[in-house]
Amino acid sequence: MATIVQKFGGTSVGDVTKIKRAAEKVKKAMEEGHKVVTVVSAMGKSTDSLVELAQDITNSPVKREMDMLLSTGEQVTMSLMVMALKEMGIDAVSLTGWQAGIKTEPIHQNARITSINTERVESYLNDNKAVIVAGFQGMTDDGEITTLGRGGSDTTAVALAAALKAESCTIYTDVTGVYTCDPRVAKDARQLQSISYDEMLELANLGAGVLHPRAVEFAKNYDVKLVVRSSMVDKEGTIVEEEVSMEQNLAVRGLAFEGAVTKITIDHLPNHYNTMSSVFTPLAEAGIDVDIIIQQMTGKNEMNISFSILTHELPEALNILEKNKKTLGYQDIRHEGELAKVSIVGSGMVSNPGVAATMFNALSEQEIGIKMVSTSEIKVSVVIQEEQMVKAVEALHTAFELDERKEAKAAVSS
Amino acid sequence: MATIVQKFGGTSVGDVTKIKRAAEKVKKAMEEGHKVVTVVSAMGKSTDSLVELAQDITNSPVKREMDMLLSTGEQVTMSLMVMALKEMGIDAVSLTGWQAGIKTEPIHQNARITSINTERVESYLNDNKAVIVAGFQGMTDDGEITTLGRGGSDTTAVALAAALKAESCTIYTDVTGVYTCDPRVAKDARQLQSISYDEMLELANLGAGVLHPRAVEFAKNYDVKLVVRSSMVDKEGTIVEEEVSMEQNLAVRGLAFEGAVTKITIDHLPNHYNTMSSVFTPLAEAGIDVDIIIQQMTGKNEMNISFSILTHELPEALNILEKNKKTLGYQDIRHEGELAKVSIVGSGMVSNPGVAATMFNALSEQEIGIKMVSTSEIKVSVVIQEEQMVKAVEALHTAFELDERKEAKAAVSS
Repeated sequence: MATIVQKFGGTSVGDVTKIKRAAEKVKKAMEEGHKVVTVVSAMGKSTDSLVELAQDITNSPVKREMDMLLSTGEQVTMSLMVMALKEMGIDAVSLTGWQAGIKTEPIHQNARITSINTERVESYLNDNKAVIVAGFQGMTDDGEITTLGRGGSDTTAVALAAALKAESCTIYTDVTGVYTCDPRVAKDARQLQSISYDEMLELANLGAGVLHPRAVEFAKNYDVKLVVRSSMVDKEGTIVEEEVSMEQNLAVRGLAFEGAVTKITIDHLPNHYNTMSSVFTPLAEAGIDVDIIIQQMTGKNEMNISFSILTHELPEALNILEKNKKTLGYQDIRHEGELAKVSIVGSGMVSNPGVAATMFNALSEQEIGIKMVSTSEIKVSVVIQEEQMVKAVEALHTAFELDERKEAKAAVSS
Repeated sequence: MATIVQKFGGTSVGDVTKIKRAAEKVKKAMEEGHKVVTVVSAMGKSTDSLVELAQDITNSPVKREMDMLLSTGEQVTMSLMVMALKEMGIDAVSLTGWQAGIKTEPIHQNARITSINTERVESYLNDNKAVIVAGFQGMTDDGEITTLGRGGSDTTAVALAAALKAESCTIYTDVTGVYTCDPRVAKDARQLQSISYDEMLELANLGAGVLHPRAVEFAKNYDVKLVVRSSMVDKEGTIVEEEVSMEQNLAVRGLAFEGAVTKITIDHLPNHYNTMSSVFTPLAEAGIDVDIIIQQMTGKNEMNISFSILTHELPEALNILEKNKKTLGYQDIRHEGELAKVSIVGSGMVSNPGVAATMFNALSEQEIGIKMVSTSEIKVSVVIQEEQMVKAVEALHTAFELDERKEAKAAVSS
């Protein structure tokens, strides 16, 4: 009997009816002869309600106590899920993070899982019980309750799947799978049958929002087969795994985009061996996420540095750079806001040298100016004006034949 | 520095404003130089909301999962309480039942505390932190979360006070103390300055509702000084302790009463040495709480047994007796409902032989018929018609001079 792990996010367990629907999926998997471990998030808006309670008391809640507070959310869901299963005649048992043996670093609100002792989970599985585990939470060696930060329940599910050597880890969510692009923006966006970890990682990092990057990384490192599918609609989802045999003919697998980007340019920096590190170390220490970086020589011993950040971090970034002006020795700082980043992702890109050119052409045909470019082996990102973002996404979606109709045509001709 | 334990019930932490008010009391105790451990219940109606969620799923929730579900309630309160304290500049830390070292029997929904490892609590106290502990919950040796049943947070507080050898354990509640009688019924009911454990135990068992009997018993066994006082009004409460020096001149300390009582009579039972046990063992095994028992010889080898139970348990009790009719060999069963039990309590009773007589006189003056009588060293209970309960309580309150005015007079004349 193979073990499988399933995870239901907040919207999939948002009320009692949805919890029952999720329980039906657990039941089905049990009846198919699997050992089933199910990871649950807090019910829909319940986390928000708890956060509001805390905010009524203080503007700066202690992180330890926020973990105490928020970790109750999943505990509520898991017990209700077991009750729903028992009502359907399925024997089940719930476990908090610490009961499921999930150990984390001693960091509150954003801990990483360090190990999982699966003894208790496995003993229940061997008793033919469905095991329901609270996502998003764990315990330190000192018996402190921690939470894993955003997307934490995905990580719990993948980590449990890895520790249990599960056949697969299915992430039930409010979309039917991973799309070539956000369907709300690109009307012809198409669901992918499968995608590689690296591609998914790029899409996840770029804000596709279906799976948390940390969970994908974990899955890649421990070779856990991920399935993303809908908890509402009974439709095949998207498989995320190392070997992607389908659709390899497509150089570009998907598009991602995000707005509210700002570009900062530092003019006339002295060209020292340590200039880059002097600029970016203080920013990193302040937790500012620097994305695309461009360095340009402007004279024999002088250079410009441009980089992009999220707009809301601009004031702090400027403040830090201003403070270090003397050390850095630059002349001037400029910044340009209301920008967006649009990226194409696909592992087929490596062997398709024309991909970036196709991208630039498609954008130029729409008279979209490119502010910055960044490339990796499986990704090309451009920074453009935010007001042109949707137009760019649509143009690229068509240019790389990601549309539903195009795929149908391709399937017929192949 | 003496350690003190405080407990705030659900109504005292019913919303954010009340949590802040409770935190003020913790702060005050800290500033008075105490080491303070505070036990909290779930916020007001939050337990009801959780129960409703469960009921939306099943009519017969598994006890284990109800414990998982309900134990989140106190966890929410304790973290909010710490946030409120930190906002006031008081260093504090919260602990779940299991983190506070509270071990219980492996019984769900109604576990008893078996031991408390106070190491973690004491280490925080020594760091000058206020320690906030989730009431009502503990953990078994197998790492299962349990709850202590009704009044469980009182028990948590008293048990912690015993384990920490605390100077006192203050139960903050929605009344200002222990009264001679329920003030909603007897208008002249008066608050007691102090009361002994045994008296409190009788009053608690008789439904006075301020303190849970199990908590009082625990306090008696471990000699924990209890204080009952209001979380809303700043008024001296009632002290519960072994030596009660005040008000000893009063033979009767308080009145208690409860309705919805039914009397069952079994006629013509054979007088065997094991008849009583044959009648009551199956009832006990079914969890039916038999209160007053009267046995009467009706012939050489025949007797009647009458006993009182709560009316809602009547069908099950009759069912059990019916099933055992052959074994028991009785002739007939009768029952009489719509009865009430009224009791007078006071340790002074032992040396006052006329107390029961005064009670019977007072009742007879009001033309109240007595159906059953039960006496102990510090209590006399009578079963009467429920419709006469309030009249009986008022008459007895006056007869035993428990009224506010009477006390004032007594104080002047003494």
